[in-house]
Amino acid sequence: MGPVVAVVGGGQLARMMAEPAAALQIRLRALVEDPDGAAAQVLPDSPVGTPKELADLRALVAGADVLTFEHEHIPGDHLRALQAEGVSVQPGPDALACAQDKLHMRERLGALGVPCPRWARVSTAAELEEFAETVGRPVIVKTPVGGYDGKGVRVVSHAVEVADWMADGGPLLVEEKVPFVRELAALVARRPSGEMRSWPVVETIQRDGVCAEVLSPAPGLDPALAREAEKIARTVAEGLGVTGVLAVELFATAEGVLVNELAMRPHNSGHFSIDGSVTSQFEQHLRAVLDLPLGDTAPTAPWAVMVNLLGSELEDPASAYPALMARCPEAKVHLYGKAVRPGRKLGHVTVTGADLEVCRERATAAVAILRGESPTEREEAG
Amino acid sequence: MGPVVAVVGGGQLARMMAEPAAALQIRLRALVEDPDGAAAQVLPDSPVGTPKELADLRALVAGADVLTFEHEHIPGDHLRALQAEGVSVQPGPDALACAQDKLHMRERLGALGVPCPRWARVSTAAELEEFAETVGRPVIVKTPVGGYDGKGVRVVSHAVEVADWMADGGPLLVEEKVPFVRELAALVARRPSGEMRSWPVVETIQRDGVCAEVLSPAPGLDPALAREAEKIARTVAEGLGVTGVLAVELFATAEGVLVNELAMRPHNSGHFSIDGSVTSQFEQHLRAVLDLPLGDTAPTAPWAVMVNLLGSELEDPASAYPALMARCPEAKVHLYGKAVRPGRKLGHVTVTGADLEVCRERATAAVAILRGESPTEREEAG
Repeated sequence: MGPVVAVVGGGQLARMMAEPAAALQIRLRALVEDPDGAAAQVLPDSPVGTPKELADLRALVAGADVLTFEHEHIPGDHLRALQAEGVSVQPGPDALACAQDKLHMRERLGALGVPCPRWARVSTAAELEEFAETVGRPVIVKTPVGGYDGKGVRVVSHAVEVADWMADGGPLLVEEKVPFVRELAALVARRPSGEMRSWPVVETIQRDGVCAEVLSPAPGLDPALAREAEKIARTVAEGLGVTGVLAVELFATAEGVLVNELAMRPHNSGHFSIDGSVTSQFEQHLRAVLDLPLGDTAPTAPWAVMVNLLGSELEDPASAYPALMARCPEAKVHLYGKAVRPGRKLGHVTVTGADLEVCRERATAAVAILRGESPTEREEAG
Repeated sequence: MGPVVAVVGGGQLARMMAEPAAALQIRLRALVEDPDGAAAQVLPDSPVGTPKELADLRALVAGADVLTFEHEHIPGDHLRALQAEGVSVQPGPDALACAQDKLHMRERLGALGVPCPRWARVSTAAELEEFAETVGRPVIVKTPVGGYDGKGVRVVSHAVEVADWMADGGPLLVEEKVPFVRELAALVARRPSGEMRSWPVVETIQRDGVCAEVLSPAPGLDPALAREAEKIARTVAEGLGVTGVLAVELFATAEGVLVNELAMRPHNSGHFSIDGSVTSQFEQHLRAVLDLPLGDTAPTAPWAVMVNLLGSELEDPASAYPALMARCPEAKVHLYGKAVRPGRKLGHVTVTGADLEVCRERATAAVAILRGESPTEREEAG
């Protein structure tokens, strides 16, 4: 009974899909690498395997209504083979290629007329130096494939600083370093049959290249700029044929917005929606990939603040629940069942309410307790 | 990592505990009778067994931090044996005895001074007739043990109508038929260390002895009566030593409120809280039985309306999602993974918002679609 959704990946995104799947009687099956990992801990049906093996993907989709993803690292040829066998692959391999390869993404966004930082494909030190000379130093250099959470990205003034990457022979993406005022994210979900719904545009606060905090909606955002950001997300979703959730990370500059990155799956910038929206990004992703009508994305409170738990001094952050829950009874805590490592995304806390600063203070305090910081340390840090 | 909660029962209540358990990294283990049932479908750790066997309970609690329940049908002797072995049993057997045996419940509530309908313990036709003569006919007769959802309850004018029950030899509970204006429910959660938090008092609408609809908060409820109902729930929780969620079903009469039934677990009258409260009854139950500080029970919208799906013309109610989701994008749908049978509790829909009548109309329409009723039928029925 109910539809079956097969998802590639066993991390926190698949784990957080499990909750709306259970509510909607959607049977979620995850292809996991770790049988004790974040998703496998909460999903009875989580076969171990790798998306690099077509056989593992074939076993995953047997009897499923749709194949979707919590990350982008799936060979496009495998997805095309499955499509040819009649499997519904959402998002499809052509769309996904733009999330897999940042050079391809820049080319496609350019063709769609979407505002982007100035960029170039460079294969030699001379090409990189020429681009840097034109746009000004430093520049941002990215490996086109495989980067995430600040990995595969460097801020460099000279080509020698990416000599190791150049030695690998493949082209690199180089971009101007945008003098942004802040960072935003526009989330939209799109069904194969075309319906789209977006959430309010949020502000994202990164630390060391990793999302640390999300404020929903982005405080004080000019309504015209919010409309522009949302329009970009819809243009990208439609133009690239994205299905499911699309997150568009944006730089807000004095002149407008520029697209930084894309993700074609539920994204850290949308975690607030679990507790702050009528329909969460995880429920919406399931509905969208099944081509079901999309849910209401209205906020359930004026503000929602999400703060990531990145590493902890505690061996088990859940051991801090007595202190956390006594201090912050309104905090919505999400832990991903992952072993603690420095800087690792272990969970997040969302607080909703009528006062932005109160929400931020509460969510930040809750995460500090999960990090094992003493009240004194927190006061000193704050 | 994280605490382990063992729950007896594999139905929808254990299933709905799975969602907040995953978010809070609480490992939920359910003792289920059906390995393909509502809870087992969504819980990787769901051993098959029965609470009638102490050995099954012992295996369930191995390594768990606490033992709790989604129904009351557990032998008290087994629970006492486990307590003697050091297991934290929440709620404890003494409290649970009041939810298991309605005669015992009436005696204990009387001792606490909680307002109840007039009642008597009767073992003979003569005793029943005498009681009926005193309070007026018809009266309500209940089997003290094992009834639920209208089962084990009869409205009778004469003892002959329960001759079959009397032939079994045990005493019966007989109560006056209360001329109630409407029915209410007061939900409270209590920790072993004493902290209590309650949700707003709700109105419950029963059809054929089964909960059909819940309105939160109870519309137009006199604040003094709301305080009285909440105070009764807290008195009962404290007086009986209840831990976890306690639902107190109440009759509202022209003179005040009277206690109808008790449930010591998450209850149908609290399902609205999943989508309508900062902390749901399922999360709160887990926190309470683990003796963790309780969560904020504030509403997330002015109104929440929950409508039960009781039976369906459809073989798979989820097959109605395209129609339902197109018509009601704000509906929060919960299906329990149960095979369709006439009148069976298969799921529920909650709609929150600023207008009570709109919420009711939307939730009712959504459930009608899940029932497989055509728009025409619904208009005729409405």
